[in-house]
Amino acid sequence: MDAYKRAGVDVEAGKKFVDTVKRISNNADLGGFGGMFPLNLAGVSDPVLVSGTDGVGTKLLVALEADKHDTIGIDLVAMCVNDVLAQGAKPLFFLDYLGIGQLVPEKAAKIVAGVEQGCELAGCSLIGGETAEMPDMYSNGHYDLAGFSVGIADKSKLVDGSQIEPGDAVIGLPSSGLHSNGFSLVRDVLFKQQHLSINDVPEGLETDLGEELLKPTQIYVKQLMPLFERKLIAGAAHITGGGIADNLGRVIPAGLTAKLERSSWQVPAIMRFIQSQGNLSQADMDQTFNLGIGFILVVHEKDEGEVLQELESANQPAFKIGHIVKGEDKVELSEVQK
Amino acid sequence: MDAYKRAGVDVEAGKKFVDTVKRISNNADLGGFGGMFPLNLAGVSDPVLVSGTDGVGTKLLVALEADKHDTIGIDLVAMCVNDVLAQGAKPLFFLDYLGIGQLVPEKAAKIVAGVEQGCELAGCSLIGGETAEMPDMYSNGHYDLAGFSVGIADKSKLVDGSQIEPGDAVIGLPSSGLHSNGFSLVRDVLFKQQHLSINDVPEGLETDLGEELLKPTQIYVKQLMPLFERKLIAGAAHITGGGIADNLGRVIPAGLTAKLERSSWQVPAIMRFIQSQGNLSQADMDQTFNLGIGFILVVHEKDEGEVLQELESANQPAFKIGHIVKGEDKVELSEVQK
Repeated sequence: MDAYKRAGVDVEAGKKFVDTVKRISNNADLGGFGGMFPLNLAGVSDPVLVSGTDGVGTKLLVALEADKHDTIGIDLVAMCVNDVLAQGAKPLFFLDYLGIGQLVPEKAAKIVAGVEQGCELAGCSLIGGETAEMPDMYSNGHYDLAGFSVGIADKSKLVDGSQIEPGDAVIGLPSSGLHSNGFSLVRDVLFKQQHLSINDVPEGLETDLGEELLKPTQIYVKQLMPLFERKLIAGAAHITGGGIADNLGRVIPAGLTAKLERSSWQVPAIMRFIQSQGNLSQADMDQTFNLGIGFILVVHEKDEGEVLQELESANQPAFKIGHIVKGEDKVELSEVQK
Repeated sequence: MDAYKRAGVDVEAGKKFVDTVKRISNNADLGGFGGMFPLNLAGVSDPVLVSGTDGVGTKLLVALEADKHDTIGIDLVAMCVNDVLAQGAKPLFFLDYLGIGQLVPEKAAKIVAGVEQGCELAGCSLIGGETAEMPDMYSNGHYDLAGFSVGIADKSKLVDGSQIEPGDAVIGLPSSGLHSNGFSLVRDVLFKQQHLSINDVPEGLETDLGEELLKPTQIYVKQLMPLFERKLIAGAAHITGGGIADNLGRVIPAGLTAKLERSSWQVPAIMRFIQSQGNLSQADMDQTFNLGIGFILVVHEKDEGEVLQELESANQPAFKIGHIVKGEDKVELSEVQK
């Protein structure tokens, strides 16, 4: 009965781990063939499910280098639920996939505890997941994480940017740092070119690189959901790979331009540090990083004051970073001031 | 603007690949922040969403060895939708996650074409996905796949095995082969211990090992959904990791035993070959492989004839492999006849 274990797959350890996940998530129903979610449709007349799937990229390799696995699950949830949110949908539930060379229960438990924490921050339920032990696929303690979130919206409350019009305000919400994008470039510059270590504390930063780089991705669901519910949002973008222009550009209608003023916000110190260390062009920076803006809202001029006030009440920092004009380019960032 | 590409992530290739996926899936809406699925609730009074997530394990390494990537996506869909089906829910949509060291568009297109084919076989829609280029994480052309399916059932039609009673028939549906489980053991026995190659055609097999091992996992959705709709199923199990006893055992109520007669079906030649080559105990076989039975139904005695007839009409082979009795063990397999 041990041939499979000798081949690198410990079925018993896998079963025990399911019990650990049940405990972490307070969900005794886990471990069935599928995760169940009863649908409460009160107040929803024309329901649309909105789903997002994502990973956390090579931020994982930084977590491995720092041997810190308890927050990468927050990143995973954030990457998925912020995408669902950007269409005006409320994330309902979440499932995770963990591919791993050898199941180390304590490490896997930390990863899942982060996922559960992310779900709590997003107000959604962890209803299932898969932990796949794959010897020969992942080595050196490597693992990969994929997440899936499903949300719901009444069709009339979906946001796709089509209602955006000239004069609308563009409001930026700060990121908590790099979030989960651009890490192959970050690692290339800091660790391969500059031979820095995660324990280094560069001038201008308050923490060592490990802590700075692993700051969990901000989850915007609870602060923003009331604004979507009240139909105060004309367009929304989760700023991920491709940066501000690519992601905001996806919701700007043809013939309009989001004109953004760089001086209206501060680029985080870690990004300025990476730029200087890697001698990166502004275009490289713009297309790879969130530049300090993790989520963007486009709101009609008449709603701007109310939206900013609501966000302030919710303790969510936010500031006007531009406005919508007629034009050909979907997004236009002002020149960098030297 | 090329620093990220030099660091191993080709954003432009990624964007082009999204267009490829749109073409393959005939879904021009792909590429938004989240995948949309309008919910048609006609005939559903108390909707429950049922979600499954899974991967295909180290069957991927066989696909890599054979450089054959066009059916592994069918396995991915099968592993997820059969889980959703086992609870009586109809799979609605699917999303995939592809983690890859370097995006090779032709190869990734083949993988996604398999996913799309799997979705067609399951009657569900491919509404989104993520392709993550992760240099330093995956090497040697390796990639990992995770899938995610959401289905729906009216609460009254969910199947959890609680209605199973003594006298019920246990009906087995043949697997198409190994499906997507046990591959670390398969590879250990055939390739590491016995030094066979994927081009070898062992005695008793009709094809070479590559073709045999990569046979896509059977998808049971279309054949079985009408039976669930008509409430003819008291319990259902998708036979994956852990084998028949573990998976069927999950739905057998306390105090009952599913007594199965091994002589009622044939163990596929590939599994007998692996057992002999690896000198594997019967317990190893039972707990690792599906033994030729990919999906199991438990039906009340009065419904047995009708269910078997319906399956015959649907061209789905099926045979009675046992019945339910009072007892302590959840599943009891008869002795092996020498």
